[in-house]
Amino acid sequence: MSVPDAPVTGAHLEAPEPTDGGDRPSRLDPAIAARLRRTPDGLVAAVVRQHDSGEVLMVAWMDDEALHRTLTTGRATYWSRSRREYWVKGATSGHHQYVRSVALDCDGDAVLVSVDQVGAACHTGHRSCFFTQLPVTSSGEVTS
Amino acid sequence: MSVPDAPVTGAHLEAPEPTDGGDRPSRLDPAIAARLRRTPDGLVAAVVRQHDSGEVLMVAWMDDEALHRTLTTGRATYWSRSRREYWVKGATSGHHQYVRSVALDCDGDAVLVSVDQVGAACHTGHRSCFFTQLPVTSSGEVTS
Repeated sequence: MSVPDAPVTGAHLEAPEPTDGGDRPSRLDPAIAARLRRTPDGLVAAVVRQHDSGEVLMVAWMDDEALHRTLTTGRATYWSRSRREYWVKGATSGHHQYVRSVALDCDGDAVLVSVDQVGAACHTGHRSCFFTQLPVTSSGEVTS
Repeated sequence: MSVPDAPVTGAHLEAPEPTDGGDRPSRLDPAIAARLRRTPDGLVAAVVRQHDSGEVLMVAWMDDEALHRTLTTGRATYWSRSRREYWVKGATSGHHQYVRSVALDCDGDAVLVSVDQVGAACHTGHRSCFFTQLPVTSSGEVTS
């Protein structure tokens, strides 16, 4: 994922009592929250793709409140695991992610966020964070 | 993610001592293992896409050994969080995932697995697991 470039604090203090998405309060629709299946630290994986080309740009993490903000502001908002704070993609870098659609997967542990990505999604300057190939040493095909 | 359709047990008993990918032994290349940044339960997110169309099919989870098996067998292999066992996609359903390439993201918490997917990726019968749209109520654009 990209380096957080826009920590956002305070806004969630207006939120009601926490849902079960960790120890942070959230305004996420309870009907959506009830469908989430989170990691032990209360997060779902957010797969981000360019809406028109389909290119997979990055993976980041959302708690309930980050998902709520993404859905209601149209700006992709994540939870930083390392810094333990919210960040809005592009708020300081200018590499905004305008949200076109969000889909939840069948078992509620991941969302697919289709965005219009301005500039590079990766903090390294690459368009996509997935620029490191790992070696695959078998084709998986069964030969006779 | 899809319902595990092919639990695999036993094979990892031949593996050497665990890396730091949890409490399970792994044969993953230590140079790759050193780059992973895992969830509290020792996993990275695996985003699976169809290699040619780019369609995002599913998200599943890999520990170090599941990544090792994926890279060395060419068959997408995951760790089931709920059942706590390995599963090879398609081994019983026939909906195989032949691995074409695997890329690691910039901070090591996700892999992008490009596959040739046979049939449906989702256990519901959908081609992709991301068939549930969530409501986005703002475009994110700043209007003057």
